[in-house]
Amino acid sequence: MTSATAAINVLTADDLLKNWQGHRRLTRKTIEAFPEDKLFQFSVGGMRPFSELTWEFIRMAVPIVEGVSTGKWEEYKGSKPSSKSELLRLWDEQTARLNEEFPRIPPHRFSEVDKAFGQWENPGVVTIQYAIDNEIHHRGQGYVYLRALGIEPPHFWVSAPV
Amino acid sequence: MTSATAAINVLTADDLLKNWQGHRRLTRKTIEAFPEDKLFQFSVGGMRPFSELTWEFIRMAVPIVEGVSTGKWEEYKGSKPSSKSELLRLWDEQTARLNEEFPRIPPHRFSEVDKAFGQWENPGVVTIQYAIDNEIHHRGQGYVYLRALGIEPPHFWVSAPV
Repeated sequence: MTSATAAINVLTADDLLKNWQGHRRLTRKTIEAFPEDKLFQFSVGGMRPFSELTWEFIRMAVPIVEGVSTGKWEEYKGSKPSSKSELLRLWDEQTARLNEEFPRIPPHRFSEVDKAFGQWENPGVVTIQYAIDNEIHHRGQGYVYLRALGIEPPHFWVSAPV
Repeated sequence: MTSATAAINVLTADDLLKNWQGHRRLTRKTIEAFPEDKLFQFSVGGMRPFSELTWEFIRMAVPIVEGVSTGKWEEYKGSKPSSKSELLRLWDEQTARLNEEFPRIPPHRFSEVDKAFGQWENPGVVTIQYAIDNEIHHRGQGYVYLRALGIEPPHFWVSAPV
């Protein structure tokens, strides 16, 4: 792109964290909307239940922020929640850690290319955006599960980043 | 957030357009994965078929870029495609317009607050990010439709922004 706008900065680290927090609030509401048994057992088309999708988000979020921050890519070590209340408790705990650790990312690490978990080579900001996009993608699938169960999902736009 | 990283710029207008283009390529592959009749008729849980979801993306993308660019919020005027080939042709035409018009957004409009379509008051960049997030969200739902039809969806990570 040769336009004059190409190098215009449109998003700060603070904006990016706020976007993510907005999406995490909406994901939390989506977890809450599931009846406990359906959260762990129901899916459509042989896909993973919503509890497994949210477990993926948990295993990505803080480890990615720590990897971008430090260059050390370590897998999430906690154990998998087996009830809705445990999952929500863990979600909130990880949100608090994310809010604490994200602002400590050294500025140069957002643009520095690194191999996330030894596999995905991208600038830090792209790896973080991928975690957010992956959460939006799979949460959208949770909406279909809820609709298939006859449950109204949370409004998408309410918790959208503002 | 009081951290030193708060005001660090992490994304340029060019990066944002590239993210969107990556997502549009993946959405195109998702449209292609549907058999023609299922694209227009199949859904899960009483939701809209995938053709209707992509029609929503079309009605948002270029009109939002034009609105952020000019401050004039005008609804998409074209007619709704009734075949897969028409939908893909329109998709490609709108992608070309997006690529042409996005770089013309005046730099100050990304941060300027405006009321999109007279309703949603946000900085330009937030309105654009919302269009992208909405596409990711509903495309994820198309993945569930494909799985329910026994069709393997495109790999999410292949077309992810890089």
